Amino acid sequence: MRPVLTLTTDFGTHDPYVGIMKGVVLTICPAAQLVDMTHAIGPQDIAAAAFALPTYSDYFPAGTVHLVVVDPGVGSARQPLALETPHAYYVGPDNGIFSLVWRQAHARWPADAIRAVALTEPRFWRPGMEMPSATFHGRDIFAPVAAHLAAGTPLAALGPPLHTPVLLPMPEPTIEADEAQAASERAAAGQATSPRLRGQVMVIDHFGNCISNITAAHLDQVGPPDTLAVHVWTRRLPLLRTYADVARGRALALLGSEGYLELAIRDGSAAHALGITPGTAIQITTADAQEHARTNR
Amino acid sequence: MRPVLTLTTDFGTHDPYVGIMKGVVLTICPAAQLVDMTHAIGPQDIAAAAFALPTYSDYFPAGTVHLVVVDPGVGSARQPLALETPHAYYVGPDNGIFSLVWRQAHARWPADAIRAVALTEPRFWRPGMEMPSATFHGRDIFAPVAAHLAAGTPLAALGPPLHTPVLLPMPEPTIEADEAQAASERAAAGQATSPRLRGQVMVIDHFGNCISNITAAHLDQVGPPDTLAVHVWTRRLPLLRTYADVARGRALALLGSEGYLELAIRDGSAAHALGITPGTAIQITTADAQEHARTNR
Amino acid sequence: MRPVLTLTTDFGTHDPYVGIMKGVVLTICPAAQLVDMTHAIGPQDIAAAAFALPTYSDYFPAGTVHLVVVDPGVGSARQPLALETPHAYYVGPDNGIFSLVWRQAHARWPADAIRAVALTEPRFWRPGMEMPSATFHGRDIFAPVAAHLAAGTPLAALGPPLHTPVLLPMPEPTIEADEAQAASERAAAGQATSPRLRGQVMVIDHFGNCISNITAAHLDQVGPPDTLAVHVWTRRLPLLRTYADVARGRALALLGSEGYLELAIRDGSAAHALGITPGTAIQITTADAQEHARTNR
Repeated sequence: MRPVLTLTTDFGTHDPYVGIMKGVVLTICPAAQLVDMTHAIGPQDIAAAAFALPTYSDYFPAGTVHLVVVDPGVGSARQPLALETPHAYYVGPDNGIFSLVWRQAHARWPADAIRAVALTEPRFWRPGMEMPSATFHGRDIFAPVAAHLAAGTPLAALGPPLHTPVLLPMPEPTIEADEAQAASERAAAGQATSPRLRGQVMVIDHFGNCISNITAAHLDQVGPPDTLAVHVWTRRLPLLRTYADVARGRALALLGSEGYLELAIRDGSAAHALGITPGTAIQITTADAQEHARTNR
Repeated sequence: MRPVLTLTTDFGTHDPYVGIMKGVVLTICPAAQLVDMTHAIGPQDIAAAAFALPTYSDYFPAGTVHLVVVDPGVGSARQPLALETPHAYYVGPDNGIFSLVWRQAHARWPADAIRAVALTEPRFWRPGMEMPSATFHGRDIFAPVAAHLAAGTPLAALGPPLHTPVLLPMPEPTIEADEAQAASERAAAGQATSPRLRGQVMVIDHFGNCISNITAAHLDQVGPPDTLAVHVWTRRLPLLRTYADVARGRALALLGSEGYLELAIRDGSAAHALGITPGTAIQITTADAQEHARTNR
Repeated sequence: MRPVLTLTTDFGTHDPYVGIMKGVVLTICPAAQLVDMTHAIGPQDIAAAAFALPTYSDYFPAGTVHLVVVDPGVGSARQPLALETPHAYYVGPDNGIFSLVWRQAHARWPADAIRAVALTEPRFWRPGMEMPSATFHGRDIFAPVAAHLAAGTPLAALGPPLHTPVLLPMPEPTIEADEAQAASERAAAGQATSPRLRGQVMVIDHFGNCISNITAAHLDQVGPPDTLAVHVWTRRLPLLRTYADVARGRALALLGSEGYLELAIRDGSAAHALGITPGTAIQITTADAQEHARTNR
């Protein structure tokens, strides 16, 4: 079985930096199967990488090593790190990049099945690197360590345990009851008082689809999907199953392929047309029949 | 022998979508050798992908699997599809993307050597995907099926035969006799009446070279290469052998590496300098000696 | 052991050209491990490729084949070429692209350990290519020859020896004594007359870091690192160890990961903020205590 090793960086693909890390990996672990995830993380954008990372690993074979180098603090005191879950390994700087990987792993497996170590053992770095470059730990520390993991070195050999990696606060959707006035109006109109869900856009993809932090589980707390409406700015979008459920050029919301609520325009860019950027607020309400009709007009 | 699997998409390389499909492939077929063809097909541009595809396969080992995901109709009724020719496999949506592959294969091999099936067997999809995502069939259906083909599953196991895939009309060059007046003038001048060939630009490449749908076989119907002139807008370009046959910055036409007539500027962008886009018309005429001298002046 | 083969081109990643070369390689050498270095060399920018190349090879396993196709002269008289050093192979057009590889190899190994051949043996080209395409030698000659080298064909079989490849003049840093007046002023102030180093920016990377042709060895000729100041335009930058040694948004100079002096802005683009392009001049002087204080203010 050839070990799989993925690469996620903010290096772009203009320069030979990614290729150089691959050369280092193949020198240590010639059998490695290398897969580029993205090298287009915004320069030094740790939060975007932290959000994107957990969506990868389940699609890879067990034991895959995920090498992540988004490292504005290179050369400072931030710790180099490796993580192990029952399904995958992760290697990179301890700067918050593994926040969501760590939290989701703890939601899924017992705490003692998830381990982290500080990378302090120079014998697993690039040979002769007892004093690594002050600017390219991706090449000198992270790539060699990832290659050693892929080649079978156990996590514990790489350095001492680290109790908890740096965890960034990540925005979480909130649920609130309707404002009192709105609720009493609804009650007067014979409608049930319904909770309202607030989330935000996390990532804009290549197609202009806007991926939020709202999941199906969040939506379930508000109501059945076909009773919900999605609000962004002053727009109200229908919540549907797939892009092809609307005409070309029409906007919709849907549960995207990773399970997050997504705003899209069929054959177009929702980000561009609706003026959405990461951080744009999204609200979910129950749509009464009248509203529902209006939505699809 | 490691099976080769290529990927052609409109996903771009910003997002992890391509990497995720590779993870799915390697989970099913760990020995696969993965090759990116392009992920820069214009969002949802089926015609460009259809034109580019047949130029790939002959350069790959026999049995290579070509995975193509340009799929604006994902989640609608369009059928997932796999094709087999004596040289290669193709997997993707049945939306016309394989039009030229299908036609060229039929021009080359007997019809019963070319087979197509509809992908209806969930056991070759991503595990647990009896109900696949409504938005990412690349990950849930096409990548797993391509991986199973690479791992040796026969085409017939994937689903029932499909008589003919969706075939897009593709623009074909036309040959016409000279207009009557021009012909009689030429006859009066002692020249032969010559046919005139009309084609169009199909693809602009990274260098700004403009690749047309005109082949050497089309040119042969008009006359020997050194007697021909190529017209675009009001310009007349010489038909030469290679970029280095003109000075830097000069325009020329030549037979490109895939056998299509191509308009180029040495060390420059013909598309930019001549205002050419996909669809721009090209005409071929015989150049008499006087014209020929003018062309090369 | 799977042979490693890297690819460096000016093809971009929009078109299938790179993928087609990989198909040709895998047809000849199915075990090859393929690594993309960059396909973003400026169209036909031989000097940039020549500078970038030697920084790759030491990070790859011994025997790696580096395929380089930046070839504006394709179809002209320029010779196809292969090189061998004790560590690596190189294949590409003989247009100066291997200038720095060749010079650095001669600085490191005895001359008879470095060999070059002209690629004149069609049996190692693409089958049926006795007359290769006039426009795509990457596919028809360079990729097949590189694949044969990776598969074990000895260099000498590929064609007759070539004494010296085309060598481009590459800008080299110069050291000069201070101008007479400045020197006498310094002497009057009790300071030592110091040499002054002049170099230039060679490459701007994806982060906007500006990589020069000045190495640590050059700096040593001027003085100890902590006594030096770096000048670009009218700016004076401190020479420090790593990006994290300054506050966000502040400019610095440092020895980059490949050993070249580099101008950078922490979490920003030095190229953009300081108006630097390839060719911009850099000067190094000794900073006296007063200057040093000013620099770090």
